[in-house]
Amino acid sequence: MTSAASPAYRRLSVEERRVQLLGAALTLFAHRSPDEVSLDDVAETAGVSRPLVYRYFPGGKQQLYEAALRSAADELEDCFGEPADGPPTERLARVLDRYLAFVDEHDAGFSALLRGGSVVETSRTSAIVDEVRRSAADQIQRHLGVDRPGPRLRMMIRTWIAAVEAASLIWLDQDKQPAVGELRDWLVDHLVALLTATAATDPETAEAVEALLAQESSSGPVGTLARRVMPVVGHAAHLLSDDSG
Amino acid sequence: MTSAASPAYRRLSVEERRVQLLGAALTLFAHRSPDEVSLDDVAETAGVSRPLVYRYFPGGKQQLYEAALRSAADELEDCFGEPADGPPTERLARVLDRYLAFVDEHDAGFSALLRGGSVVETSRTSAIVDEVRRSAADQIQRHLGVDRPGPRLRMMIRTWIAAVEAASLIWLDQDKQPAVGELRDWLVDHLVALLTATAATDPETAEAVEALLAQESSSGPVGTLARRVMPVVGHAAHLLSDDSG
Repeated sequence: MTSAASPAYRRLSVEERRVQLLGAALTLFAHRSPDEVSLDDVAETAGVSRPLVYRYFPGGKQQLYEAALRSAADELEDCFGEPADGPPTERLARVLDRYLAFVDEHDAGFSALLRGGSVVETSRTSAIVDEVRRSAADQIQRHLGVDRPGPRLRMMIRTWIAAVEAASLIWLDQDKQPAVGELRDWLVDHLVALLTATAATDPETAEAVEALLAQESSSGPVGTLARRVMPVVGHAAHLLSDDSG
Repeated sequence: MTSAASPAYRRLSVEERRVQLLGAALTLFAHRSPDEVSLDDVAETAGVSRPLVYRYFPGGKQQLYEAALRSAADELEDCFGEPADGPPTERLARVLDRYLAFVDEHDAGFSALLRGGSVVETSRTSAIVDEVRRSAADQIQRHLGVDRPGPRLRMMIRTWIAAVEAASLIWLDQDKQPAVGELRDWLVDHLVALLTATAATDPETAEAVEALLAQESSSGPVGTLARRVMPVVGHAAHLLSDDSG
């Protein structure tokens, strides 16, 4: 009787059971706000009893949420890794493709986490989110060839990361429009534009941009953007002569 | 005895008392995280008893926080108003000066609010913050001369607003470095760069940028940025010819 009713109770090891429960939690937390997920939902999704969930996660929903967030954060940080080969904007495009696939996959949970206001949010969950942001910033610095950026470049990098988060939330709100490839290209253009504008007044950024441009090709994102920007900038011809003095 | 010990109890009208208590709450919530402010602190700052605070704000700290946030949000929205005269980037610089003075004035409270994780955060406080963001977006659209922006331009505007928030938080974390004028100029450059990059692929943005550039002067922010970007872009000369075919 017992073996037929709950075969999984005997078959899974402690670690396997933990992974199974975490998987059920991840699935639920990915597509719903954490406030809409109950321990009963997790038990039901995993096909186990509520007491069993508590045996593995005595801290209940809070502990499950933090474990699921930890796991999602690790997955996201793995997305950021990219060999330092080829045009930097093409490396960035590949990382953004993986990141946006993650956002697409974890839509409701991603929104709820970044929007805040949930009862399961604590200083620990905020610390995990901040760690992911730091990891993203570290990778950008690595590809820019800058070890310890000065305050201007550091602010630029963190600001672009915030802009990517905001764009992701808006994209989810807009029923994932525009198409993900268009969003990715725009985010690349966004960073190129921001680097260029910051290079205009920050020597450290200017040096990094010069090194970056040398690695780009005319058929890549920077070349395409540069040619497309030409007609826009044409309207600024009257601004180029300094007749202020 | 009573009149000497608590003269204010008789002198202030109900509305005056409310304003006084709210003022005390605003001062406290501006410079501390809401979790570090107690009703006793508010009573002490206002020089009244704790029961009196409860008489005016029966909802206690939560109600006081929401009232203080409402008041701060109104003040911030007032900052955003700017006549549609003169070069648009100079209008933007004036708005940013007022906004950054607000951030400077409400430092710890501003950080705590946007960082999240406080117990006083509710869907009502989130709605107030979102309303301020919407108001900022409306003003930008007004100065761009666009009533109902399409998805690309709308995403660009909201993304820049998120970038400004992120830059403000980083600025507060970095002991308010760089100098506020430098931060303001960089935020203006940031929007100009972002508009230009977005105009490269979005016709609606291109049209708005063309109208914008016609109102700028060579001695203003766009002219200065354009001249400073020249040497940076010089390193991209090899990217301008399309030899991809």
